Amino acid sequence: MEIIFKPIGWVRTSVPDDETPHFYAVSDIEGTLEILDEYKGGLADLQAGQRIVVLFHFDRSPEFTPDLVRQVPRKRKDLRGIFSICSPVRPNAIGMSVVEVVQIQEGKIKVRGLDMFDGTPILDIKPHAPMEQGK
Amino acid sequence: MEIIFKPIGWVRTSVPDDETPHFYAVSDIEGTLEILDEYKGGLADLQAGQRIVVLFHFDRSPEFTPDLVRQVPRKRKDLRGIFSICSPVRPNAIGMSVVEVVQIQEGKIKVRGLDMFDGTPILDIKPHAPMEQGK
Repeated sequence: MEIIFKPIGWVRTSVPDDETPHFYAVSDIEGTLEILDEYKGGLADLQAGQRIVVLFHFDRSPEFTPDLVRQVPRKRKDLRGIFSICSPVRPNAIGMSVVEVVQIQEGKIKVRGLDMFDGTPILDIKPHAPMEQGK
Repeated sequence: MEIIFKPIGWVRTSVPDDETPHFYAVSDIEGTLEILDEYKGGLADLQAGQRIVVLFHFDRSPEFTPDLVRQVPRKRKDLRGIFSICSPVRPNAIGMSVVEVVQIQEGKIKVRGLDMFDGTPILDIKPHAPMEQGK
């Protein structure tokens, strides 16, 4: 059973890969989410200052193999289950970041807080709804 | 350019589809995330009481067509851009929910807060990291 997705756009940033932070919550990196023409209408109602969830493809990850169900995370020495860590080498190489919208312009979303590399394929954008919101 | 994923498991719940809440933050529904044998080792370190992010496939959504870049959400009357709403009919039919781990047992995760239907394919599980954590 295969599930097939296509990029809705790509991350653009001038920051080199090796200077990119590993976690959005500690990143001040700015860049752009360039959305394909056919989906630009979907950017309506996004507003500067709000946070959005970006789902993306870890397109530079090596293939996941069974031995990788446990991995030693950066800055740790012990093996951890893959579903307890944010490693980019996952059964399905989907990443998730929360970034702040700086500006919307001509189908491009300028954002702050990037932890993705330049050229990363974007799969989806969702409003960021903190748990407390629905309670 | 196609990106291919495979389910790592399936959502199991006895709640009928039409009684399933539309947003995890208002759901008290309990159920199970059944993980395929090959990925069960990845459940190590998940603990009862913690929140996890579940990415899943909206497998019962109709195909996305260009006119759906704006949709009228439930309980609203105005069209909204698809990236500002949580509609299951999206360019890539990926859903995201935050649920609470109740118990881990033999490769099954009992959870609370489900807003997915029984049989929904699971794509990934990640630790839930509130924005404030990294700051």
